[in-house]
Amino acid sequence: MKNNLIITIGRQFGSGGRYIGKMLAEELEIPFFDRELIDIISEKSGVSKEIVESVDEKANKFFYSLMFAGGTDNMYDLSMNDKIFVLQADILKKLADEGSCVFVGRCADYILNNNYNVLKIFIYQSMEGKKERAIKYYNVPAEKAENIILKNDKRRAAYYNYYTNLKWGNLENYDLCINSDMGIENAVKLIKSYIDIYYDKKI
Amino acid sequence: MKNNLIITIGRQFGSGGRYIGKMLAEELEIPFFDRELIDIISEKSGVSKEIVESVDEKANKFFYSLMFAGGTDNMYDLSMNDKIFVLQADILKKLADEGSCVFVGRCADYILNNNYNVLKIFIYQSMEGKKERAIKYYNVPAEKAENIILKNDKRRAAYYNYYTNLKWGNLENYDLCINSDMGIENAVKLIKSYIDIYYDKKI
Repeated sequence: MKNNLIITIGRQFGSGGRYIGKMLAEELEIPFFDRELIDIISEKSGVSKEIVESVDEKANKFFYSLMFAGGTDNMYDLSMNDKIFVLQADILKKLADEGSCVFVGRCADYILNNNYNVLKIFIYQSMEGKKERAIKYYNVPAEKAENIILKNDKRRAAYYNYYTNLKWGNLENYDLCINSDMGIENAVKLIKSYIDIYYDKKI
Repeated sequence: MKNNLIITIGRQFGSGGRYIGKMLAEELEIPFFDRELIDIISEKSGVSKEIVESVDEKANKFFYSLMFAGGTDNMYDLSMNDKIFVLQADILKKLADEGSCVFVGRCADYILNNNYNVLKIFIYQSMEGKKERAIKYYNVPAEKAENIILKNDKRRAAYYNYYTNLKWGNLENYDLCINSDMGIENAVKLIKSYIDIYYDKKI
């Protein structure tokens, strides 16, 4: 196992998890990967960014429908999600080999868990806090905010549960779960404290 | 709302949550209440320690059986658990009024949430870690350890879920969830960091 520290951040929609990861990476001066991975995957696979983006963090609904329908000709859709998952897993491992970094979402905690030094974090928040953030930063209409948050989290959960066979947001999958009602900057400070306390080496 | 800081610790059986709470209280020089509450409740209620202990953190199974059986004469059992819960809630509030302190279990997070300055923590751990601790400190036979851990957690969950209508161990109930695989002393340090970061006042 390499000494690189790989920080993975799972997050509820609107909880600020992506921003926490970005600030943390900046303060630790290590690379940060979230939607940046879409470009890398597109480049490595030759698949257009639009298609990579369309399956990003989405479980393959067709898998289930195929199982119950006894198969269709729509195998292209089935294989696209799964192929991109496999390619993405490969890219995550190569990036983790190169040095310490922060990954947001994409089952990175599960993919890297056994062969890397992984700090697995999950960020969640009260619905009030998430709504406020979604309205402010994602231009979500106030009256639809809760619905959009729940829908996005449902999609993330389906993706995670499908590929890991674990339950997204179940605390036992993570080393530390932080309610970001404490504030984004404070959550970053707390994760830095965790690293100072637990990892005796410098990143 | 008073300025006292009330730290509540929910914990999986064998995760070291009680010990983390005790160390934290010692380091912060504030009172610690876990099984200490049994003596206080017994004294205030006149009910023997043995009886208080027998219903401690246990949901009232009779409640459900009564509902489905259409009632029995066994109302004494129904009221004993519930009366002690109500009395305990009252004692928790009085202790919280007196000053900052640490409570372990007993739905303290739920009981105090709305009227006090509460830091709600949940401690969990990998099954391996919990088994090791249970065998070492609670004289649990190795071959029965997992079963005993699961049974105790099931009981704690039933108690919590019954009295709070929330789900025990669901991260959304807490401010911070720590996997104690990081070590007991480290978890104490991390909670102290949280307090330093988030609460600008001294305890």
